[in-house]
Amino acid sequence: MAKDKQFAVIGLGRFGSSVAKTLHQLGYEVLAIDSNEETVQKFADEVTHVAIADTTDANSLKALGIRNFDVVVVAIGEDVQANVLTTLVVKELGVHYIIAKARNELHGKMLEKIGADKIVYPERDMGQRVAHNLVSTNVLDYVELSPNLGLVEVRIPRKFIGQSLAEVNLRATYGVNVVAIKRGQQLIVSPRPDEKMNDNDILIVVGDTSGIQRLESNV
Amino acid sequence: MAKDKQFAVIGLGRFGSSVAKTLHQLGYEVLAIDSNEETVQKFADEVTHVAIADTTDANSLKALGIRNFDVVVVAIGEDVQANVLTTLVVKELGVHYIIAKARNELHGKMLEKIGADKIVYPERDMGQRVAHNLVSTNVLDYVELSPNLGLVEVRIPRKFIGQSLAEVNLRATYGVNVVAIKRGQQLIVSPRPDEKMNDNDILIVVGDTSGIQRLESNV
Ligand SMILES: Nc1ncnc2c1ncn2[C@@H]1O[C@H](COP(=O)(O)OP(=O)(O)OP(=O)(O)O)[C@@H](O)[C@H]1O
Ligand SMILES: Nc1ncnc2c1ncn2[C@@H]1O[C@H](COP(=O)(O)OP(=O)(O)OP(=O)(O)O)[C@@H](O)[C@H]1O
Ligand SMILES: [Ca+2]
Ligand SMILES: [Ca+2]
Ligand SMILES: [Ca+2]
Ligand SMILES: [Ca+2]
Repeated sequence: MAKDKQFAVIGLGRFGSSVAKTLHQLGYEVLAIDSNEETVQKFADEVTHVAIADTTDANSLKALGIRNFDVVVVAIGEDVQANVLTTLVVKELGVHYIIAKARNELHGKMLEKIGADKIVYPERDMGQRVAHNLVSTNVLDYVELSPNLGLVEVRIPRKFIGQSLAEVNLRATYGVNVVAIKRGQQLIVSPRPDEKMNDNDILIVVGDTSGIQRLESNV
Repeated sequence: MAKDKQFAVIGLGRFGSSVAKTLHQLGYEVLAIDSNEETVQKFADEVTHVAIADTTDANSLKALGIRNFDVVVVAIGEDVQANVLTTLVVKELGVHYIIAKARNELHGKMLEKIGADKIVYPERDMGQRVAHNLVSTNVLDYVELSPNLGLVEVRIPRKFIGQSLAEVNLRATYGVNVVAIKRGQQLIVSPRPDEKMNDNDILIVVGDTSGIQRLESNV
């Protein structure tokens, strides 16, 4: 059943443990590593393999065969030095794809210099997402798809009920497009312009971030 | 310029500070509160108002007029007791919408009982997202839109180049729908079935989570 890619996750805080569990649930082989014995024991049934190791020590990582993993996630959080050293060691041992969690942009820049392939800022990114979701009671979710492109889910404002997408014309007003309508359990993908909106419909809208922001402020 | 809703954010760690800054950037009035003086001072220019206060103390929150805020975000992290007590006090002072950050599900359940309107788990949710993004080098981003509905951005596999969406027919194979194509700076929304795929196209696909997972594993 296990799929071809092999993952190692180092540092089983809330972020790292969520990455490890999700990868395992998706059917992948996951080695989860932490220096804390109790933390590691709690994980024994959640992933494929677990190991107790101080990952700033090259020899422990070598002994775990870290270079055979396709992707290594460095999720050590508070201890920036351990995070950076671990990334350095993993890189030197020849791992091809390293993703590392950073506390702030300076830390992220350092990780990039060392050779991490992708830097993640979970708290910052989630903060942005939650803020967008909060600005309107009609905005249910916001996702940045790229620096220029966003997606929002919006509950339709009462004034739209019974109107067609063409009549409302979000494209003309905000330069954004309705890509789907959620109607109860049903998902209407690429809805036709003459589709009329019902009470309780949720629109899934994509567009450039400035248009999305104007829409968020006005629905 | 400031918009009508007023927000207070309590606890300026990485998550809380990102929520506060983003809301302010979106044009809203934001009061940012933390018990740590240095932290608060760093924020003076990033939000509308700042305050130094121990928010477990009802009198300090009352003095800040917390009940006049439409939404209060409790983003205190490590100190679960301070997080829970603050939520309790904010609720008792009559705030209508409280969103609170939880460390784990037990903590989340407690916050719900107290009356928080929305619970967020930034590290867990971001871990899930990063895991999905990792499983295939063609999957660039994954977003859960609801427990049953997901969105992925996928780089088109080489074998699709030159084929039309109808020929590839992801709907028949995975039960998912292509809602947009990113082609360089261009976004083709609700693409026609006869749209041919180019090298470097990125597909934005929505569908139920099981279909999305099968797609993720196979592109
Ligand atoms: N040198 C090291 N080798 C291996 N694991 C380590 C090392 N240093 C710290 N860790 C582990 O990293 C894990 C995550 O670190 P920590 O809890 O400090 O991060 P955090 O930022 O609070 O995480 P989160 O916000 O995701 O909960 C801890 O379980 C800790 O034991
Ligand atoms: N009683 C309190 N009243 C006001 N602020 C508080 C109180 N207790 C803690 N805080 C503040 O909450 C902020 C966030 O807490 P902390 O750094 O422990 O969370 P965290 O989970 O590490 O956050 P993040 O992961 O978002 O960085 C800190 O700046 C801290 O000063
Ligand atoms: Ca921690
Ligand atoms: Ca954290
Ligand atoms: Ca909302
Ligand atoms: Ca990927």
